[in-house]
Amino acid sequence: MRDTPFTDHEGRIGPPDSRVYPRFMGPATFARLPRIDEVADWDVAIVGAPFDIGTSYRPGARFGPIGIRNGARTLRNWHPDLELHPFGSQQVVDAGDIPCSVYIIDDAVRSIEEAATELTQGSKRIVTLGGDHTIAFPLLRVAHQRHGPVALLHFDAHVDTYDTYMSAAYTHGTPFRRAAEEGLFSREHSMHVGIRGSKYGPEDLAEDAGFGFVVLGTWEVESIGIDGYVTRIRERLADMPIYLSIDIDVLDPAFAPATGTPEIGGFTSRELVGILRGLRGVHLVGADVVEVAPVYDHADITGIAAANLVYEILALMSP
Amino acid sequence: MRDTPFTDHEGRIGPPDSRVYPRFMGPATFARLPRIDEVADWDVAIVGAPFDIGTSYRPGARFGPIGIRNGARTLRNWHPDLELHPFGSQQVVDAGDIPCSVYIIDDAVRSIEEAATELTQGSKRIVTLGGDHTIAFPLLRVAHQRHGPVALLHFDAHVDTYDTYMSAAYTHGTPFRRAAEEGLFSREHSMHVGIRGSKYGPEDLAEDAGFGFVVLGTWEVESIGIDGYVTRIRERLADMPIYLSIDIDVLDPAFAPATGTPEIGGFTSRELVGILRGLRGVHLVGADVVEVAPVYDHADITGIAAANLVYEILALMSP
Amino acid sequence: MRDTPFTDHEGRIGPPDSRVYPRFMGPATFARLPRIDEVADWDVAIVGAPFDIGTSYRPGARFGPIGIRNGARTLRNWHPDLELHPFGSQQVVDAGDIPCSVYIIDDAVRSIEEAATELTQGSKRIVTLGGDHTIAFPLLRVAHQRHGPVALLHFDAHVDTYDTYMSAAYTHGTPFRRAAEEGLFSREHSMHVGIRGSKYGPEDLAEDAGFGFVVLGTWEVESIGIDGYVTRIRERLADMPIYLSIDIDVLDPAFAPATGTPEIGGFTSRELVGILRGLRGVHLVGADVVEVAPVYDHADITGIAAANLVYEILALMSP
Amino acid sequence: MRDTPFTDHEGRIGPPDSRVYPRFMGPATFARLPRIDEVADWDVAIVGAPFDIGTSYRPGARFGPIGIRNGARTLRNWHPDLELHPFGSQQVVDAGDIPCSVYIIDDAVRSIEEAATELTQGSKRIVTLGGDHTIAFPLLRVAHQRHGPVALLHFDAHVDTYDTYMSAAYTHGTPFRRAAEEGLFSREHSMHVGIRGSKYGPEDLAEDAGFGFVVLGTWEVESIGIDGYVTRIRERLADMPIYLSIDIDVLDPAFAPATGTPEIGGFTSRELVGILRGLRGVHLVGADVVEVAPVYDHADITGIAAANLVYEILALMSP
Amino acid sequence: MRDTPFTDHEGRIGPPDSRVYPRFMGPATFARLPRIDEVADWDVAIVGAPFDIGTSYRPGARFGPIGIRNGARTLRNWHPDLELHPFGSQQVVDAGDIPCSVYIIDDAVRSIEEAATELTQGSKRIVTLGGDHTIAFPLLRVAHQRHGPVALLHFDAHVDTYDTYMSAAYTHGTPFRRAAEEGLFSREHSMHVGIRGSKYGPEDLAEDAGFGFVVLGTWEVESIGIDGYVTRIRERLADMPIYLSIDIDVLDPAFAPATGTPEIGGFTSRELVGILRGLRGVHLVGADVVEVAPVYDHADITGIAAANLVYEILALMSP
Amino acid sequence: MRDTPFTDHEGRIGPPDSRVYPRFMGPATFARLPRIDEVADWDVAIVGAPFDIGTSYRPGARFGPIGIRNGARTLRNWHPDLELHPFGSQQVVDAGDIPCSVYIIDDAVRSIEEAATELTQGSKRIVTLGGDHTIAFPLLRVAHQRHGPVALLHFDAHVDTYDTYMSAAYTHGTPFRRAAEEGLFSREHSMHVGIRGSKYGPEDLAEDAGFGFVVLGTWEVESIGIDGYVTRIRERLADMPIYLSIDIDVLDPAFAPATGTPEIGGFTSRELVGILRGLRGVHLVGADVVEVAPVYDHADITGIAAANLVYEILALMSP
Repeated sequence: MRDTPFTDHEGRIGPPDSRVYPRFMGPATFARLPRIDEVADWDVAIVGAPFDIGTSYRPGARFGPIGIRNGARTLRNWHPDLELHPFGSQQVVDAGDIPCSVYIIDDAVRSIEEAATELTQGSKRIVTLGGDHTIAFPLLRVAHQRHGPVALLHFDAHVDTYDTYMSAAYTHGTPFRRAAEEGLFSREHSMHVGIRGSKYGPEDLAEDAGFGFVVLGTWEVESIGIDGYVTRIRERLADMPIYLSIDIDVLDPAFAPATGTPEIGGFTSRELVGILRGLRGVHLVGADVVEVAPVYDHADITGIAAANLVYEILALMSP
Repeated sequence: MRDTPFTDHEGRIGPPDSRVYPRFMGPATFARLPRIDEVADWDVAIVGAPFDIGTSYRPGARFGPIGIRNGARTLRNWHPDLELHPFGSQQVVDAGDIPCSVYIIDDAVRSIEEAATELTQGSKRIVTLGGDHTIAFPLLRVAHQRHGPVALLHFDAHVDTYDTYMSAAYTHGTPFRRAAEEGLFSREHSMHVGIRGSKYGPEDLAEDAGFGFVVLGTWEVESIGIDGYVTRIRERLADMPIYLSIDIDVLDPAFAPATGTPEIGGFTSRELVGILRGLRGVHLVGADVVEVAPVYDHADITGIAAANLVYEILALMSP
Repeated sequence: MRDTPFTDHEGRIGPPDSRVYPRFMGPATFARLPRIDEVADWDVAIVGAPFDIGTSYRPGARFGPIGIRNGARTLRNWHPDLELHPFGSQQVVDAGDIPCSVYIIDDAVRSIEEAATELTQGSKRIVTLGGDHTIAFPLLRVAHQRHGPVALLHFDAHVDTYDTYMSAAYTHGTPFRRAAEEGLFSREHSMHVGIRGSKYGPEDLAEDAGFGFVVLGTWEVESIGIDGYVTRIRERLADMPIYLSIDIDVLDPAFAPATGTPEIGGFTSRELVGILRGLRGVHLVGADVVEVAPVYDHADITGIAAANLVYEILALMSP
Repeated sequence: MRDTPFTDHEGRIGPPDSRVYPRFMGPATFARLPRIDEVADWDVAIVGAPFDIGTSYRPGARFGPIGIRNGARTLRNWHPDLELHPFGSQQVVDAGDIPCSVYIIDDAVRSIEEAATELTQGSKRIVTLGGDHTIAFPLLRVAHQRHGPVALLHFDAHVDTYDTYMSAAYTHGTPFRRAAEEGLFSREHSMHVGIRGSKYGPEDLAEDAGFGFVVLGTWEVESIGIDGYVTRIRERLADMPIYLSIDIDVLDPAFAPATGTPEIGGFTSRELVGILRGLRGVHLVGADVVEVAPVYDHADITGIAAANLVYEILALMSP
Repeated sequence: MRDTPFTDHEGRIGPPDSRVYPRFMGPATFARLPRIDEVADWDVAIVGAPFDIGTSYRPGARFGPIGIRNGARTLRNWHPDLELHPFGSQQVVDAGDIPCSVYIIDDAVRSIEEAATELTQGSKRIVTLGGDHTIAFPLLRVAHQRHGPVALLHFDAHVDTYDTYMSAAYTHGTPFRRAAEEGLFSREHSMHVGIRGSKYGPEDLAEDAGFGFVVLGTWEVESIGIDGYVTRIRERLADMPIYLSIDIDVLDPAFAPATGTPEIGGFTSRELVGILRGLRGVHLVGADVVEVAPVYDHADITGIAAANLVYEILALMSP
Repeated sequence: MRDTPFTDHEGRIGPPDSRVYPRFMGPATFARLPRIDEVADWDVAIVGAPFDIGTSYRPGARFGPIGIRNGARTLRNWHPDLELHPFGSQQVVDAGDIPCSVYIIDDAVRSIEEAATELTQGSKRIVTLGGDHTIAFPLLRVAHQRHGPVALLHFDAHVDTYDTYMSAAYTHGTPFRRAAEEGLFSREHSMHVGIRGSKYGPEDLAEDAGFGFVVLGTWEVESIGIDGYVTRIRERLADMPIYLSIDIDVLDPAFAPATGTPEIGGFTSRELVGILRGLRGVHLVGADVVEVAPVYDHADITGIAAANLVYEILALMSP
């Protein structure tokens, strides 16, 4: 009981082998990985940001880290498509949750920024489990501290560049306007992918374009295919340091019902995974997967999907 | 509280801006639109027909209008793909529900016909929220009164041209045979789209063809793509006045589980929306979205899908 | 469609008769009552306060007003046990929702206070549908403006007299400490009923007692019965003006699963209704039913329970 | 596979022993009992009446027979409290379902009457699984044919003696008025037990009393206990032939959420079973358990409750 | 009640016509087909194997046969795409369930082998409803007895050729290694289709290849389309006798949530049905559909999908 | 993130204060307690035994430890009714899960026995989270090693003294027969409480009585009240060392739906907690809470109930 039978791989500690230590047993860390205090050193940390009062419609993403970690029980060590060990080619750990207020938004923004700053010393990287999309703003601040303006690669049904919601500046609909105002991302190399659904007005997209964003929807799958997405994204990102932010609602509600603001016509999980794999080799400096609200889930399909997206991110981060 | 902060657009009243008046607040009308008695004049009315005893398997579509209206809380004013304001280029209202028996089918058919007749005076149009598919028959009668035989564009997994169910003539499996018998639609310009699943016998489709229907399934997506569907439908409809009837089960159960007679192999929501958008410019005289049975829904995904289909219909109706 | 067939009773307008106009049809107001703008005058208004960022565990009470109104579709005109017409002996209306921020707590507290002040002119009374328990604080302020210190009758599993949650002063765990600090309720005539579950420490109840609260749990049902509760409550309240606040978690999770912080060992709905009926004749100046989070509901049982509690409150308010 | 390992008991065939033939295996008959065609003779038949268009609110009781049979997989041979073998002291069979229209109410009423007449030849008795409460009317007709006016013992939240629903005479709210009009039950020996919830008006109960019904609610449990109920019921029934009709909504929604018109404050299953057991020895000539709508169920708790009520009925029928 | 109104087709007995005998009525056999003892002779039997203790993650497939039979209530007689009668061109029956231990795996393996041997005398064939994938091993043994090494066509997210799980040799992750060890399938003509998701290590696929398996994933849909799959499968199978094993998790969790080990990126139901239909004419000697765990289902969509896959299998078996 | 803000109480480490560190954050240990390796010494350990192949009906208790730990997020430090600190008067830790086979029952029995032996050195005690009831057998063996025959206090709907299930000796229906055969409990001081539901035959209870068990059902609540239960249990237990085993199905399915073999007529949570509190002062040497199958849960009510029962057990264990 005291000793989790972690898998050892090239001197690094990975999840236990589920044929020996079944998935419903053992620690509730992401993929049953070691905790940050169980290893001498690490490369990538998974960290939760259970904050959701930036939510405009259905709340519940505060339980997102729990839901994604639960979904991650299904993951195994070897990525057969990219032929690498996401947990073995680098030391991945679970750093627990960032304590952050769900009462006072500004406090939470500050806590997340501080915690992320502390974690990302040296070449260490984090993948943050939301929480709602508000958290991308402090995370971008931290990425900017280290790397200057990053290429922001944003998968989402919504552009999230609105100004305010009921006078609140920091919400899940506004992080990238705040980021634009602070110059946190490169206006030449950033883009939204998966945008769809009705908007408040034509100015939404016009203003968004003003921040430099190029937009790809989901309807283009029919015409350009997954390869077309990969090409356009790679061209846009160039060789910049990239911050990747995935709102789970970029998937269709059929594939990810457990989210706050679902929009029909989304990607299938197969399409999204295909696009991500096409990015192998880019320079990823940080990432988040947000807006998983488990109470709306069914048979854990959203939690499992989100966990697999984190897995793909870790594969992209693998040296 | 008394004053809903409706959005004003070109002199027309649309839904409130959710950044100011969040979606979980306010009236439970479709998209929180004004009620029919709150505006001086209107162009298109959304009206519920909470009738479901024409159902042959899983009942519950009597709660369809409630479910679709709830799903419509997610809609916004601007349609970015067609670049128009569905709620602003025309005055759309919510006309409430048609009181109709769920005990005596013939009474309900009569009530729906009377109510629809009354509503569609002059150039006014309605989009009806089912209820089961039985309601399409009285609605077609009303369309025929105004326009003569219409081109019937019918999205559904099932042809709905059976003769009787347990001796009942008016059911959700028989509306279009009744309509054929009364000559309500043009036999040269009507079609079913999305048909699939097992049938009672080869005579089902033979009889159906006898009423003039051309049939497109869902399997053809692989070969002709969305554009192929658009082309074939537009050719068939020509420049006729069109009545559009969408059974939500034309979507795959993964995308619309909340329905009475699900059939696997359906359209994705992206495909269906793509086809509908391809019809921009056709002459739509009336429409319905039927067979949403909310008790079978999960995370409101069916309600949200149905509400978005209504939104696309309103976009097609926009001048 | 335009005319809801309201029941007329002694010159007052009540819900339609469901034998003629079934419950799944018609307006989504509470019990399908007239809206506040549909009557010339009124006595009691039902009003929603869809606020939930005072929540410490499971959010979602922002959808409470929708859920309770949906549950209220089951209500009828006559209360056979108290032998009165809750909707007929007084004009009850639905006043819609108070627009209040779910981002900035202080803004919401202010909005609720202003709206409640405006509504409760003269002898008008409101019953507020939460939202989380934070809303009781501004509502008590308004009651205090009219009536001076009220007797606070508080049904809840929790005392809600904590000081702060993560530095936030106005939360669903702190309204009655804030109220005590402002002297909004009488320390001689207030009580909590239904308290149970683990506490942070013995000081919780000690501090609470310092605000003058008498506490009755649920375990006493075994010994004193419903009559015993009625007696003790009536003695405590004396003939004061009473503000009644019901947290739905006073019911056992089996009876009201859809809430944020469930505690086992609660009242059955039969017990709670029995206690409320025993209070016939007290002087109720205002009331709320809070903490209904519909996403956690099953078969609407919590929404129906909450709606029935509002019905009992209206019966207590009947002249 | 072909041979279900039924338990043989005193020459009668009962359910298989679940320690040998687990409950998730084998035929989907009630309690995995033999079908009517598998035995030479029988005493009591379980028969389904999957009819639900007499429903006024939430439909779905057409799936009731499936749901109750599924719940009955949990039953075993021996009733330890009454110390008898409900399946062994009499031959119980599953007679399948009565084919009855869910489109035309009058047709269904006729079909049920004919089928029940055919089944109840000689001393044979049936327990009918609803379906909605409409079915009690034709079943009472059949009971009356054999036994003259019966004592009607009716467990329900609602009196079901309304006149019409939207002009329909045969609905789930009107069976006992129709029965009264035809003199099917004794006005001196009939009663409702479990009545509660709001009514349309005081005339509801007045009219009901006019048909001779004595009413017991659920609130009396507090004062008279289960024994008090047993005493009052036995006094009322005297030694008449009894028809027992149980609407599952007599249970509280916490115990039986899967029903169409739930009312809070119902019996616990323990109370209801206690009352039924107190009736051992009465002369039961027929019975039904109605209004189970499985789509609203959770973890099969309503189906299991209904199956156990049938089990108690069979125990009461045991010689 | 006693006489199910089966459809007669060319002297064979099929499901009742649901327009006359609705789907929620009647026997719970697969598609309401006759039981094995109700016909003089038969060609294909549907048989359940409610075993699930070979499961490594989420159990519940013991209820699979119940869930799939329930889903099969939606099937009709005529397959319009292949233009044949799956229930009419051959006599299909429901053979009930194989009694097999859910405590001792080896006992279950033996029971399934014996029962399948007994059933498949002469040219009789069976389609087995799992249960977990462990059952494929004894079924392959029986296929091998009759036909020698078969071409194994295996649809699954997982290769299921692991060695042991917690020392157990017969589990749902190991059937095809056991089968390989016994030479039950041809190493020249077998393949896995639909493989995806993370693996324990690169050796997983290497070992699997050592057993002769060719692997097709799901990602290839983008490049080769459904026709490409059909071509490759037909080439691989050649004209061998084929055993077809479908793990429901080959479908994406959006289409089949009710399974034990879901993996994102799966086939849509439309794709899988398209591939199966492309195999018309192959020589199918046996088949199973496994890993349906109904407690994880929603609105029966997985049960309905599985039932339709069985329907496609029956179509492939039609002469 | 790395430092959980545990509450310090009398030198012992308890759960964090949820007003500062909300419950949806932090480690997924029971009540967010420290892990066994985080403290120098401990008194009571919570340990999971995720085993469920002893289950005869609905499986899923392998996820019980996850579900109960999740429910335990709601617990706080102070027990106001017994006026003690369950986490402060003794050091409680979470020892993780016992790795045990879910394929081979005998292996699991051995693993559990070994792990429990190792944990309970000296005066250390464990509370085990099931898993199904099979696990009580090895746990009783360990209790017997330390204390000789214990008084077994068993709360359950079922006696669990059957002989075999499908030839398996160790199952969730047989642990106490195996224990009786090995003399693990005192035949003079043991009892079952909460027994109800149908049995296989009168011999079930006769055989059970032969092992010395006294039986109390749930029906006696009506006559003897909670105090009556307490008295009878205390008399029976005398001053023996007690092993307490609670099958969650002792609660009514309304209060604990998430279990494998629900029986109606169970205890309310209030009754069961009342009985447990009445046992303050007895000598508890070990305990388990079993048969929680979370997939059947709703709004976590069963997980929360089970967690509270563990809390009451810890209170009974407090010095």
